[in-house]
Amino acid sequence: VATGIVSLLTDFGLEDAYVGIMKSVILSRCRNCVLIDLSHNVAPQNVRGAAYLLWTAQPYLPSGTVSLVVVDPGVGTKRRPIAVAAPQGYFVGPDNGFLSYVLAEAGAQAHGTNLISLPLEWRAVVLTNEEFWLKPVSNTFHGRDIFAPAAAALAAGVPLERLGSPVNAIVAFPFPRPSHDGDAIHGQVIHVDHFGNLISDIRARDLPPQFTVTVASYTVEGPATSYQSGNTQSLVALVGSAGLLEIAAPNGHAASMLGITIGAPLEVRAR
Amino acid sequence: VATGIVSLLTDFGLEDAYVGIMKSVILSRCRNCVLIDLSHNVAPQNVRGAAYLLWTAQPYLPSGTVSLVVVDPGVGTKRRPIAVAAPQGYFVGPDNGFLSYVLAEAGAQAHGTNLISLPLEWRAVVLTNEEFWLKPVSNTFHGRDIFAPAAAALAAGVPLERLGSPVNAIVAFPFPRPSHDGDAIHGQVIHVDHFGNLISDIRARDLPPQFTVTVASYTVEGPATSYQSGNTQSLVALVGSAGLLEIAAPNGHAASMLGITIGAPLEVRAR
Amino acid sequence: VATGIVSLLTDFGLEDAYVGIMKSVILSRCRNCVLIDLSHNVAPQNVRGAAYLLWTAQPYLPSGTVSLVVVDPGVGTKRRPIAVAAPQGYFVGPDNGFLSYVLAEAGAQAHGTNLISLPLEWRAVVLTNEEFWLKPVSNTFHGRDIFAPAAAALAAGVPLERLGSPVNAIVAFPFPRPSHDGDAIHGQVIHVDHFGNLISDIRARDLPPQFTVTVASYTVEGPATSYQSGNTQSLVALVGSAGLLEIAAPNGHAASMLGITIGAPLEVRAR
Repeated sequence: VATGIVSLLTDFGLEDAYVGIMKSVILSRCRNCVLIDLSHNVAPQNVRGAAYLLWTAQPYLPSGTVSLVVVDPGVGTKRRPIAVAAPQGYFVGPDNGFLSYVLAEAGAQAHGTNLISLPLEWRAVVLTNEEFWLKPVSNTFHGRDIFAPAAAALAAGVPLERLGSPVNAIVAFPFPRPSHDGDAIHGQVIHVDHFGNLISDIRARDLPPQFTVTVASYTVEGPATSYQSGNTQSLVALVGSAGLLEIAAPNGHAASMLGITIGAPLEVRAR
Repeated sequence: VATGIVSLLTDFGLEDAYVGIMKSVILSRCRNCVLIDLSHNVAPQNVRGAAYLLWTAQPYLPSGTVSLVVVDPGVGTKRRPIAVAAPQGYFVGPDNGFLSYVLAEAGAQAHGTNLISLPLEWRAVVLTNEEFWLKPVSNTFHGRDIFAPAAAALAAGVPLERLGSPVNAIVAFPFPRPSHDGDAIHGQVIHVDHFGNLISDIRARDLPPQFTVTVASYTVEGPATSYQSGNTQSLVALVGSAGLLEIAAPNGHAASMLGITIGAPLEVRAR
Repeated sequence: VATGIVSLLTDFGLEDAYVGIMKSVILSRCRNCVLIDLSHNVAPQNVRGAAYLLWTAQPYLPSGTVSLVVVDPGVGTKRRPIAVAAPQGYFVGPDNGFLSYVLAEAGAQAHGTNLISLPLEWRAVVLTNEEFWLKPVSNTFHGRDIFAPAAAALAAGVPLERLGSPVNAIVAFPFPRPSHDGDAIHGQVIHVDHFGNLISDIRARDLPPQFTVTVASYTVEGPATSYQSGNTQSLVALVGSAGLLEIAAPNGHAASMLGITIGAPLEVRAR
């Protein structure tokens, strides 16, 4: 019997039982579903952080996976609960932009924070069909009462259209993109990972074959081919696993060494 | 073939392999079991914290789930290892009160820390049948050697009575309850969640329609309908997902803002 | 239908989606595989920490488990990616010594950091068969592109030899062992767990029946039979769940109390 896969990405942390409660709701309704935790340590209310992590994971999720993404500062307000069907799988969460980077990858780049039209072959609904809700619906935990039930339904094979009313556009914000200024590329740090690696918005395909990165007061020559290419205490500039330029400290924590974080500017020049 | 679900709730943290070892024991003995992590970040030895989280998750666990709860400061002492069958599922852990709040919800409220009689339709055993133990039994990790095997057995369909000797009463402590003093309700903070929300022991059904909460040196009017109902830097008072009054800071961390934690008093008055 | 179990042990942390991405790769290739997290909070680049945790978990893993161990400071360099078949199961990861303590337990003790010959009935390959790689292979995330696919293949029943070229020796470093000096045993702390317990390299079978441990400026008599055997504010010395002498503080955090960590010396004398 075919069974679905549900991935989970939230800012719930792991101290409470919130994540376990969502999983309990899913398994109560889709007993054979398989669950994959992407992360539950997105910074509280950081929708862009969730959008970034979802974009890094999306190419590797098993085909047809239902991605449940609940970073939901607007829970209990008028923001819409949505479910989206894309060629690669399904997405469920509050309509706050969590799909922005996956949409940009699919060619639907946002300009400003706005509703953008879905790509061809994508469909979306607002989760208005109360038949699937877990009642009574709380004002503070739609992950449990609306989103987990919708994800379970999709994973169990319920057609998207049964969950609510179709919409053609959802909220998205732009993927950060570097600007080009003569022979310089001006980018920024968009993620700092567990190892302290500074991941930028500059893509491998936009990099010169040999280049110099200026970040904070440091200058780093690239590309390196591994985290160990530099000397201890030095920095390396290399293309990371998401295809983006990153700055790392061999056996160290670059973000702490440089005292910078998300939003810090980088400049790349050919050398 | 029917297979069981085991939920796990501990204070083991995620730095060591302790949780993975318990899961390994369970899957060695119940290959098709499905596992749900509730939390492994209960504060060390905080049985009341585990009792609270179990109570919040219990209504959502799939029917028949075996809840393995190991916060066990008394491991290796005379405290009894128990398994309990309730209408909604099974519970396994040290007999130290971890079921207190679930029992109170079922009508078996403790007074002081004492043995209390189980509700009708509940059964319990002390895990005396060594046939199910993982030998040699260590003095420091009964989660691995006694509790995980018992949970696996129950999830695999072994009758409760095979695991040990029946008992009619287990340890429980009282669910914190606010006191009523004229038109004031005097409660306390019983949990601080990942977002810094201050969750009290005051239930939705005991609240006046419109009220004022006094907490630390702040006064908050309620009820709000969402975390975003207040202004930035202000506080909101609302009913959270467990049906309890909570104080939150929109996009902030109320516990840090107020400098208070579990045990802090709150006063509610009608307005 | 037989399905495999894959355990995961990394230093990836839980803030990013790195672990979820590896799981996604495994489930894409082995849909019925069951996953067990041992830990993802090994200190960054701490291969010895991973070797220790793997050794503590190994006896409890379901027979045939594929253990995926990715603590990989040398990713992208010439260090070899390997898979190993042992009587109890499979191991996949960078050839950097992560199997050292499991090998020592099997009688293959290393002397210095070197290639050591595998025990009888063990086999190993270097993961050279690109057919199993996830292309394009990044320079920074072989966990995703080489190791997770190999683990999935083994869990799905692919013979080890199909994954690459046989080798007879792999990298290992010595298990820390105490020295004996007259009637004194000189050991060291090799792990500090979540509870702050100081776990030493001194085994239960090497301990006198009654002994005194000197650690930092403290003297502790042992063996205690439980963490609660001491008075509050005192220390206890007992044999922990891995069969090693450990120093604990009842309801406290011994490592913080004593201000010591991994590498700190202990001396044991009969009393």
